[in-house]
Amino acid sequence: MSSSIPKTQKAVVFEKNGGPLEFKDIPVPTPKSTELLIHVKYSGVCHTDLHAWKGDWPLDTKLPLVGGHEGAGVVVAMGDNVKGWKIGDYAGIKWLNGSCMNCEYCEQGAEPNCPEADLSGYTHDGSFQQYATADAVQAAKIPKEANLSEAAPILCAGVTVYKALKTADLKAGEWVCISGAAGGLGSLAIQYANAMGYRVVGIDGGADKGEFVKKLGAEVYIDFTQEKDIVSAVKKATNGGPHGVINVSVSEKAIDQSVEYVRPLGVVVLVGLPAGSKVTAPVFESVVKSVQIRGSYVGNRKDTAEALDFFARGLIKCPIKIVGLSELPEVFKLMEEGKILGRYVLDTSK
Amino acid sequence: MSSSIPKTQKAVVFEKNGGPLEFKDIPVPTPKSTELLIHVKYSGVCHTDLHAWKGDWPLDTKLPLVGGHEGAGVVVAMGDNVKGWKIGDYAGIKWLNGSCMNCEYCEQGAEPNCPEADLSGYTHDGSFQQYATADAVQAAKIPKEANLSEAAPILCAGVTVYKALKTADLKAGEWVCISGAAGGLGSLAIQYANAMGYRVVGIDGGADKGEFVKKLGAEVYIDFTQEKDIVSAVKKATNGGPHGVINVSVSEKAIDQSVEYVRPLGVVVLVGLPAGSKVTAPVFESVVKSVQIRGSYVGNRKDTAEALDFFARGLIKCPIKIVGLSELPEVFKLMEEGKILGRYVLDTSK
Amino acid sequence: MSSSIPKTQKAVVFEKNGGPLEFKDIPVPTPKSTELLIHVKYSGVCHTDLHAWKGDWPLDTKLPLVGGHEGAGVVVAMGDNVKGWKIGDYAGIKWLNGSCMNCEYCEQGAEPNCPEADLSGYTHDGSFQQYATADAVQAAKIPKEANLSEAAPILCAGVTVYKALKTADLKAGEWVCISGAAGGLGSLAIQYANAMGYRVVGIDGGADKGEFVKKLGAEVYIDFTQEKDIVSAVKKATNGGPHGVINVSVSEKAIDQSVEYVRPLGVVVLVGLPAGSKVTAPVFESVVKSVQIRGSYVGNRKDTAEALDFFARGLIKCPIKIVGLSELPEVFKLMEEGKILGRYVLDTSK
Amino acid sequence: MSSSIPKTQKAVVFEKNGGPLEFKDIPVPTPKSTELLIHVKYSGVCHTDLHAWKGDWPLDTKLPLVGGHEGAGVVVAMGDNVKGWKIGDYAGIKWLNGSCMNCEYCEQGAEPNCPEADLSGYTHDGSFQQYATADAVQAAKIPKEANLSEAAPILCAGVTVYKALKTADLKAGEWVCISGAAGGLGSLAIQYANAMGYRVVGIDGGADKGEFVKKLGAEVYIDFTQEKDIVSAVKKATNGGPHGVINVSVSEKAIDQSVEYVRPLGVVVLVGLPAGSKVTAPVFESVVKSVQIRGSYVGNRKDTAEALDFFARGLIKCPIKIVGLSELPEVFKLMEEGKILGRYVLDTSK
Repeated sequence: MSSSIPKTQKAVVFEKNGGPLEFKDIPVPTPKSTELLIHVKYSGVCHTDLHAWKGDWPLDTKLPLVGGHEGAGVVVAMGDNVKGWKIGDYAGIKWLNGSCMNCEYCEQGAEPNCPEADLSGYTHDGSFQQYATADAVQAAKIPKEANLSEAAPILCAGVTVYKALKTADLKAGEWVCISGAAGGLGSLAIQYANAMGYRVVGIDGGADKGEFVKKLGAEVYIDFTQEKDIVSAVKKATNGGPHGVINVSVSEKAIDQSVEYVRPLGVVVLVGLPAGSKVTAPVFESVVKSVQIRGSYVGNRKDTAEALDFFARGLIKCPIKIVGLSELPEVFKLMEEGKILGRYVLDTSK
Repeated sequence: MSSSIPKTQKAVVFEKNGGPLEFKDIPVPTPKSTELLIHVKYSGVCHTDLHAWKGDWPLDTKLPLVGGHEGAGVVVAMGDNVKGWKIGDYAGIKWLNGSCMNCEYCEQGAEPNCPEADLSGYTHDGSFQQYATADAVQAAKIPKEANLSEAAPILCAGVTVYKALKTADLKAGEWVCISGAAGGLGSLAIQYANAMGYRVVGIDGGADKGEFVKKLGAEVYIDFTQEKDIVSAVKKATNGGPHGVINVSVSEKAIDQSVEYVRPLGVVVLVGLPAGSKVTAPVFESVVKSVQIRGSYVGNRKDTAEALDFFARGLIKCPIKIVGLSELPEVFKLMEEGKILGRYVLDTSK
Repeated sequence: MSSSIPKTQKAVVFEKNGGPLEFKDIPVPTPKSTELLIHVKYSGVCHTDLHAWKGDWPLDTKLPLVGGHEGAGVVVAMGDNVKGWKIGDYAGIKWLNGSCMNCEYCEQGAEPNCPEADLSGYTHDGSFQQYATADAVQAAKIPKEANLSEAAPILCAGVTVYKALKTADLKAGEWVCISGAAGGLGSLAIQYANAMGYRVVGIDGGADKGEFVKKLGAEVYIDFTQEKDIVSAVKKATNGGPHGVINVSVSEKAIDQSVEYVRPLGVVVLVGLPAGSKVTAPVFESVVKSVQIRGSYVGNRKDTAEALDFFARGLIKCPIKIVGLSELPEVFKLMEEGKILGRYVLDTSK
Repeated sequence: MSSSIPKTQKAVVFEKNGGPLEFKDIPVPTPKSTELLIHVKYSGVCHTDLHAWKGDWPLDTKLPLVGGHEGAGVVVAMGDNVKGWKIGDYAGIKWLNGSCMNCEYCEQGAEPNCPEADLSGYTHDGSFQQYATADAVQAAKIPKEANLSEAAPILCAGVTVYKALKTADLKAGEWVCISGAAGGLGSLAIQYANAMGYRVVGIDGGADKGEFVKKLGAEVYIDFTQEKDIVSAVKKATNGGPHGVINVSVSEKAIDQSVEYVRPLGVVVLVGLPAGSKVTAPVFESVVKSVQIRGSYVGNRKDTAEALDFFARGLIKCPIKIVGLSELPEVFKLMEEGKILGRYVLDTSK
């Protein structure tokens, strides 16, 4: 390990779920023979981080825990058996820190479905620290031309919507509806959809959001605060229904409507993770329309590389607000109050 | 038109939905320039025929109507603009009698989804008569080596389960679960699944059905009258869940369970047409498992040709009971009472 | 048929292959029950028309023959069994005039591969006349917002390159190399590739063509008159080779080179129809690189609709030069002399 | 490492290409933190091993070298960072010993195309020894119910033909032609094709081979020593040509013929690695028939697991002849003389 790597570092740690978020000095971790040590420069803050801290989900977190899974930084050290990386490379810490690479899911490139998945900021200390370890196979390769602070949210939010669009399996020229178009995920989804040649209809609430959504590249905006009959409006705007729907909104009603307005033979993608929500579809109509409902989880290594490539080529803009790592508790508070617009990114040097 | 074609024929006709089913003489129809006239020898009887007679579905039937959409016979005349057929060919009348061939659905081979679909025994007089017309493009080509009475049920039941299996999009060697395995559709599904190289687990109720299902080729049988925890039993038998599920059972509970026991990344196919039923899936689990739910309707021309080819090669056996066309009212009665085992086929000469 | 349709019309006819091209009055044809009568306004002129006139190919043409297979016009009459069209619709005459719709190729939407394919301007009088018949199933639906003179070349040239790009089966963000980028097909291919989200490297000869190619949307231009080592240059520009190659150039050397520079796992598409040319690939390298070579013929109904949709949305510009129908012999002469730049389109009113 | 693992072992080693093959004692290797130590019980002998020893290919081998890449054995030790394995598991050494897992090819599961691929018996000491190391990610998981001596040839020969069949991308019920059907690869290909639901036509020379090929499951046998017109014979037997062709024969003439007899829209797979051979295809016919030529290399982890699963289920029989490891020089000699029938497998205890 290089002599320039300190022994201790700043991190935000909690000892128990929902307990105090302490900004303090902790030891810099040592990478295993198959791991990178990444000097995290910036880390995005995602709703999942809030869920992890609060312990909302059935799966237990590691404790004490350093959260965070959208970390962008630089490789400063690596284990003996790491291949394909060198010191100084830009690297990203993402939700899937590592997997077994040996089960049937890993074998087919579906590592996020690995039963032994190791999750950053959940079962493995994450990116809310200055130095973090990451499995060298799963760590994201960030192109040198990328801006690290803007790249951070691509590592989770960007990859997730890109994967959802791939799951919809559309052809260039077809219509995709983004339900929840003006939010963090939605605004990225519009841009990826455009880069892939799709025509976008966005649904959200309010005229301001409409302007924003159209500026990002949506051809059509449907305002659910104004439009009484969403199903008819979407069908009409797309001459029979969109070929695919990306439900980044997690409203049950919105999801059920999407099964109604999707074009015959079309694909409805579920991508959010609302606790307890259900999607309900009428069997008769689903069969006669030959509709598909597909769950899409996070992307794999290839999806990540592709999502980052679109970003590095300048096709995806992610509006961020940078604050210091020490301010994470305030960010969580805003998030709980639903007051966040755009994406907060933490600068680990502050 | 050949001089051997009579002017009148026997048919079963009803004047209004649910009204008397009259076995009587009616004129032999004249084919349009794009149609075949088929001398129907045998016709299967399907639950859909019962629904059509009773008027159960939102879509209106033609009235008066000759029902039936599993008709196997011989081409005896054809219009001037028919291509690819000759007198004496074996031909089949199926659910989709004709379509516009010009809309976006027809253009991509999804003719059953055509908004102007013309349906045999529903909007077009069907196979419960001795001579029926059929659009030459959609009529099924039955191989000469086929037995016409056994081929009849393949035209709807066989094609439907074959299409559902194609919709599951499995690889040879993968597990498929047939829910409702011992029924008319299920027993055909097991045989098609075997011919496609899949491993079959069948679910149904009772020991007799278990024997039947295993004899047809299922590796595993799960008896829902004995097994308390169907979800665990299916997962255990398939080492983690089947890669695909064909729900020919239309029980809501069975369908919801199939979303639970399907393998991560797997596909649940809905194929029956229960009026009013719903499928409900938990969003969180569907996303994390990356499950797909797909509606599968009837097959297209290619699916039909393939399903008939498997049959003609002797890989699919369809146990039938032959009765006279005049006995249709009794068959409907047995069907309503749930007393039908196997498939009834009508001999139009009686 | 409407009273406004004349009994006779202007056409260019030849009695024998290579014989005089006569601009003269001939009867307006009568559509069959399954055909449209299209008032052709404009017709593109394609190299295939020259081959047909000269009788270059193994397949015999109809004689006497009215050539042409890129006809854009208006439906003025139709047969009794036509579905999905109305008088006044814009319609296009394309290479595949009609097919049997009953063989295994038609069944899977590969109508151009139908053994009984009826070809416009080859086995069926084509678009070098004012009124032409076209099978209603195969005729192209041209959107009302389209400019008919510019739409004409899309019907063959546009569809062909679009189909070739679909055959390459790339993902948005991947590299495609267009070999012969500045020609008629190549310049359309660049634009379709961009609309589909691909990154384009174009190969052609000369600085002028380079400017043209870049203006159309190619990221990289490689000039074969300047570049000694095309294979290395293409690999370098695309960081390892393009994921797909569209060979609109029919040079054997260029095609063989494309097998060398294509990326491992990549696809080389053959799309032109040079008489007697061969593609030669080393077996060892093809296997180790897992390369694919795919022949792509003309598009089907769906491909045609999609190609026209991109055009109608303004994403594809086709530079044309309009001359009178009577000037066809001069256009053929220029074509034989290799003096054509861009696409000639005939105005049938002159 | 367990105390029962010896310090030295028997192996066959050569110091330079083509030099003496010495059966002698060498140290047992120590696995890296990411490797398994496998007690090899049996190793198949493949033509590639002969090429490696003689140094026939452009790529240099490691020297001195222990060859062999079809090793079946038991895990006896493993490095600290190995996941998903335990001592006592059955494990297989295959051609791809390890790869970087970080390049674009590894990212998409195409590890055999990794530029840094580490090859057993070529760049990494292989299975012609009693104890060999293997990357834990790439090592094959052999099911416990498998017979290790018969499993050995599946690890290369079996996986290779299975991958080739997957590359042909056929549907159950379609025709596949195996060119070179009676050989080691061909006889496995017939069995895999049957298990996948395909119909097989086999080509080879002589009546004895015909009987053998039919016994293995081919519906049709074509004897090139008797049949004058192979192209017509294959087309006739398959009613228009096979949908796919697997060229395990490496004759240039046979490969070129396969492009001729393959069905329109069909796929010709190249799978052998003849030094210097070429495949030549006419451009015009390839385009009009829309034929595809695809190179298929060795399988990846998933392909390997699937191929072994078919074997473990008893669907694939591999006739082997077992001799001692010390007899490898004699086996190579027979191989050079073309006198090998079936597969030789070495017992490392002798």
